[in-house]
Amino acid sequence: MLQPGLMMDRPLLVSDVIEHGAAQFGDVEVVSRETHGPLFRYTYAQCAARARKLANALKQLGLEPGKAVGSIAWNNHRHLEAYYAVSGSGMVMHTCNPRLHPQQLIYIINHAEDSVVLFDSTFAPLVKAVAAHCPKVNAWICMSEAANMPVIEGVANVLCYEDLIAPHSEQFVWPQFDERSGAALCYTSGTTGNPKGVLYSQRAIVLSAMSASMPGSVSLSPKETILPVVPMFHINAWCLPYAAPMSGAKLVLPGPRLDGASLYELMEAEKVTVSAGVPTIWLSLLQHVEQNGLRFSTMRRTGVGGSAMPAALISKFADNYDVEVRHGWGMTETTAVATIGCISATQMNLPAAEQHAIIAKQGKSVYGIEIKIVDENGATLPRDGVAQGELMVRGHWILTGYYKGESSPLVDGWFPTGDIATIEPSGIMQIRDRAKDVIKTGGEWISSIDLENAAMGHPAVANAAVIGVKHPKWDERPLLFIVRKPGQTVEREEILAFLTERVAKWWVPDDVVFLDALPVGGTGKVQKADLRKEYGGVFS
Amino acid sequence: MLQPGLMMDRPLLVSDVIEHGAAQFGDVEVVSRETHGPLFRYTYAQCAARARKLANALKQLGLEPGKAVGSIAWNNHRHLEAYYAVSGSGMVMHTCNPRLHPQQLIYIINHAEDSVVLFDSTFAPLVKAVAAHCPKVNAWICMSEAANMPVIEGVANVLCYEDLIAPHSEQFVWPQFDERSGAALCYTSGTTGNPKGVLYSQRAIVLSAMSASMPGSVSLSPKETILPVVPMFHINAWCLPYAAPMSGAKLVLPGPRLDGASLYELMEAEKVTVSAGVPTIWLSLLQHVEQNGLRFSTMRRTGVGGSAMPAALISKFADNYDVEVRHGWGMTETTAVATIGCISATQMNLPAAEQHAIIAKQGKSVYGIEIKIVDENGATLPRDGVAQGELMVRGHWILTGYYKGESSPLVDGWFPTGDIATIEPSGIMQIRDRAKDVIKTGGEWISSIDLENAAMGHPAVANAAVIGVKHPKWDERPLLFIVRKPGQTVEREEILAFLTERVAKWWVPDDVVFLDALPVGGTGKVQKADLRKEYGGVFS
Repeated sequence: MLQPGLMMDRPLLVSDVIEHGAAQFGDVEVVSRETHGPLFRYTYAQCAARARKLANALKQLGLEPGKAVGSIAWNNHRHLEAYYAVSGSGMVMHTCNPRLHPQQLIYIINHAEDSVVLFDSTFAPLVKAVAAHCPKVNAWICMSEAANMPVIEGVANVLCYEDLIAPHSEQFVWPQFDERSGAALCYTSGTTGNPKGVLYSQRAIVLSAMSASMPGSVSLSPKETILPVVPMFHINAWCLPYAAPMSGAKLVLPGPRLDGASLYELMEAEKVTVSAGVPTIWLSLLQHVEQNGLRFSTMRRTGVGGSAMPAALISKFADNYDVEVRHGWGMTETTAVATIGCISATQMNLPAAEQHAIIAKQGKSVYGIEIKIVDENGATLPRDGVAQGELMVRGHWILTGYYKGESSPLVDGWFPTGDIATIEPSGIMQIRDRAKDVIKTGGEWISSIDLENAAMGHPAVANAAVIGVKHPKWDERPLLFIVRKPGQTVEREEILAFLTERVAKWWVPDDVVFLDALPVGGTGKVQKADLRKEYGGVFS
Repeated sequence: MLQPGLMMDRPLLVSDVIEHGAAQFGDVEVVSRETHGPLFRYTYAQCAARARKLANALKQLGLEPGKAVGSIAWNNHRHLEAYYAVSGSGMVMHTCNPRLHPQQLIYIINHAEDSVVLFDSTFAPLVKAVAAHCPKVNAWICMSEAANMPVIEGVANVLCYEDLIAPHSEQFVWPQFDERSGAALCYTSGTTGNPKGVLYSQRAIVLSAMSASMPGSVSLSPKETILPVVPMFHINAWCLPYAAPMSGAKLVLPGPRLDGASLYELMEAEKVTVSAGVPTIWLSLLQHVEQNGLRFSTMRRTGVGGSAMPAALISKFADNYDVEVRHGWGMTETTAVATIGCISATQMNLPAAEQHAIIAKQGKSVYGIEIKIVDENGATLPRDGVAQGELMVRGHWILTGYYKGESSPLVDGWFPTGDIATIEPSGIMQIRDRAKDVIKTGGEWISSIDLENAAMGHPAVANAAVIGVKHPKWDERPLLFIVRKPGQTVEREEILAFLTERVAKWWVPDDVVFLDALPVGGTGKVQKADLRKEYGGVFS
C-alpha cells in the first residue's frame, strides 16, 4: 500500500506567482507601452498591489469565483494586472483575439458568459460593434485613465479602469482553492465552424510557466529582460507573463506597437535580452535592422512559434546578429510551449549550417509533455525521422475537452493535434504539414509544405501553394499553385522540371495553376479551403 | 462557484522523469565512477532500461508499493537506477547517510522498515556491523558485479546487484498513482535524540527538480554537464539526479572520489560545466587547482549550500577562475533548495566585491517556497536586513511532519527552521545563526557566527567559538573560546580590544577561554553542546 508523503499540501495557484514576484523581486521593473503612446514603468511589487486593487474592484462589481472576465487588449501592464486579479480571485480570464470577425467575437463573449470585458481604447470600435449583441456583459471596462477614455456611442455601461480601481485597497487575501480550477480561457480561431474554448487550470498555467522559464526553453532569470511579442490574447502569451515574475526577469510589454522599428527601439532602450513571437514579427524586425545597419546591443535569444521559421532567417539571426533562435511548437490546446529546440553541448561543435537545420525543426517535448506520431489507424509510428504521422500530445497542460464541448477530442488519452510530423530517434519533432493539407497518394504521404518550399526555391516564384486533388488511381495527387514575381514569365514545364530535380519523382505535381495572388485569411495564412473549393475536382 | 479546468489530470511522478530523459534525451550520457575505480558510461535510455530491470527484480523479491528500500551508497549510476526503480514503483527510496554512527544507522533502517538495503562495497564493514540488528531487512544488495563482491562474514542474505537484475526484462509499466504518495525518505542527522525522517512526495520531488533546473537556480539544460558532489544520501542531492534527465543535461557522478584532485580531473575529462556541493569540497578543489597552477576549461558555475561559503572563497572562484557561485540554503526538511542567490541584471554592473557580498548571503526563496522571519512570540519581523528572527518556510516541498512523528512541527502552517536569519527588502535572506546558538542579551540578539568570524580575523587566532552563558542582569552574555595558532601567545585583553574595534560594544564577550582545540562531531561541526556542558555556568 502506498505511503502518503509528508509534504505541505498547497495548491499551485496563479496568485502565488505575482506574490512571489512582489516578495522576492519587488524592485524588478515592468515596462509597458500605453495604448496612447508613452511608456509606463513600475515594479512587480506595484503590479501586485494594483492587481489586488483590481481584485477588490471586481469583487465589488459583484463578480464571484467561476465568473468569466473578457479582455480585448494588447500586451500591457493593465492586462497583466487583470491576468492576476481575475485568475487569482478564482475567476476565468477570457482573452479575446481582437483579430476575430465581430460575429466570432460576439459568439465567444456570449459562449464564455463574460460578466465584464476589459478592453484597450484601440478596440473601442470593436466594442461598439459587438456590445449590443452581448447582453450578459454588465460592464465594458476601458483600460485607461479618465483623460484617455474613448467615446463609444450607443454603449451605456462603459467604465474607466483607473477610476474603477482607484478607491480600492491594495490589500486582498487571495482565496485558496483546488489547483485544478479554471484560470484562463482562450478560443481557437478555427477557419470552419465556431471557435472552441480551452479552459486552462491554475495548475496547468503554473507548471507551464515553470517549464517556459527553464534554460532549455525560453530561459528566464533575474539576469534577463523579456519582451513577449506573442500576444497576451493568444495562448497566454506562452505563459511568459507568469514566467517573468516567477523567475525575476524584467518584463517589457510592447503594447500596440509591433512594427520592426518600434520593437527595435524598445529592445535597445530597455536592454531586452530575450523575446518571443511568430516568425513574421522577426522578419519585419530583421528587415528594419538590416535596412538601417543596426545591431542588437543586448538581445541574445528569441523563442519562435506559431508557424515554421525558415532556416535562412534562423541563420541570419545567429550568424549576423548573435541572436539564438529557440524554435517551438504549441497550440491553443496546449496552454503554451509543448516542444522547443535548443542546441545541446555536443551539437555546439557542429558547423553553423547543421545547427540551424536542427533549430529549423520544432524541437523536443519539454518535461511534462509527451509526444508520439500515429498512422491513420492510430498505431504508433517509429521515431526514425522518416515516418510521418499525426502528432499526438499528452501532459500536464494539454486540454482534455473543449469548454462546454459535447464530446472529448482525446484518443486513448492523447490529444490529436491535426499536425503531421516526424520524430527523430533523438526526440526532435518536425511539423511536416497540417493533417488536412497533407496529400495522400498511393498509400504514401506528400507534405504540401515541403513541396511549396521546393517550388519557392525557383527564382521566378513569389508564392506557392499545393493542394491534394482526387485521383482515380492514386487516391490524391498534388496540384501546384504559383504566383510569379513581377515581370517573370516562368511556365508549367520549367517549374515541373525544376521540382523533378529536387523532390522524389512521385512528389512532382500533376499540374500547375498560375494565379495573380493566393487567397489569404485574416491572420495572413493561405486559405487552402478556398483553393480546394475552386480547383479540387478530380484528376483524370 | 469555481469552474473546473479542462486540462489532463495526470500525476507528477518520478517515473516520468527518467522516461522523459529516455524519450527526449536518450543519447545524452551518464558517466559514473565505479566504487572499485574505473569510469562507467551509458545513456539516459540505458539508465531507464536498467531502472526498469531493477523494478522488475524488486517486484520479484516480493516488494510492493509503500515498502521502503534503503541505500548506503555513493553518487553512482546504480544508485541513480535505484532512485527511479524504487520511487517509480511507488516504493520509498530511503537514502542512509553512511557517516551516521552505526547505532543511528540501525535505528533509521528499523524505523523506516527497510525491506532491502542497497549498498556500495565501501560500506561492507558498516553492513557487517548493523545487519544482525536489522531483522526486517530481507536482503542486502551490493551494487556491483559478481567479480567485485565483498565478503561479509556473518551476513547471510547478501545479493549481487548485477546478478539480481540480469535475468529481468527492460520493460516495466510504471504504476500510476496519487502524486502526493511518498517517494523518498531521508533522516536528519540531529546531534541530540534520534534522527527524524522526512518523507518526500513524488510531487515535491518533481516540482523541486523543475525548480533546481531553472536558470536562477542551478540552471540545467542540454547545453550543460552537471557533476553533483552533494551526496545522493543527503536531501536527494538537491534533486539534481532528477533535474538532469528532466532538462537533458549530461550527468557525471563522482562515486567515492571526492578529493580535489579527483574532482578536478573528472571535471576536465568530462567537460563538466556546473557542479553543486558544500563549501569544504570547493575549498579542497580550489587548493588543488591553486597549488598546481591549473585552470577550469569548462566549469563555469557551482551551487553551494550546507553551510555558509566565505566571501573570500566566492571571490577567488569568480575573479581568478571565472566560476560563478550560486549560494543557497535548504535542509532535510525542505527536500532540496529553498533559497538561492543569483546576481541580477542590474547588479551585474556593481563592483566585483559588492557582487560577492550579495552572493555570500543565502539568496531569495525560489518560486514555490515562501520565507519569513519571526520573533520569539511568532510575530513577523520586518524585511529590513537588520531584524533577526527565526526563519520560517512554507511551500510545495516543505515537510508537514516527521515520519511516524507524533506532533506536527509546524507553527501556523509554517516550518520553523531553527535558523536565525535576516531578510532584506529585496528578499535576500542571510543565515545569521542557529536558533540554539544565538545569544539573547538584554532583549537583543547577538549572532555567535558573526562574533566568531570577527574573532577569527585576528592573525593569532586559529579557531573560535562563542556560546551564551546565563547572566543575572542581561539574561545571557557571550563567552568566547579561542584556539591560538601554533607559537602564538595572544591573551584575553588583546582579543577583547581587537573585538571592541570591530563589533558593537554590547557584543564584546564577557570572557575568553583559551583551548588547545574545539570539540568537533562526526561531520566536523563544532559541538557547542559540549562547550555549554563544561562552561555554561552563570556570569556573575
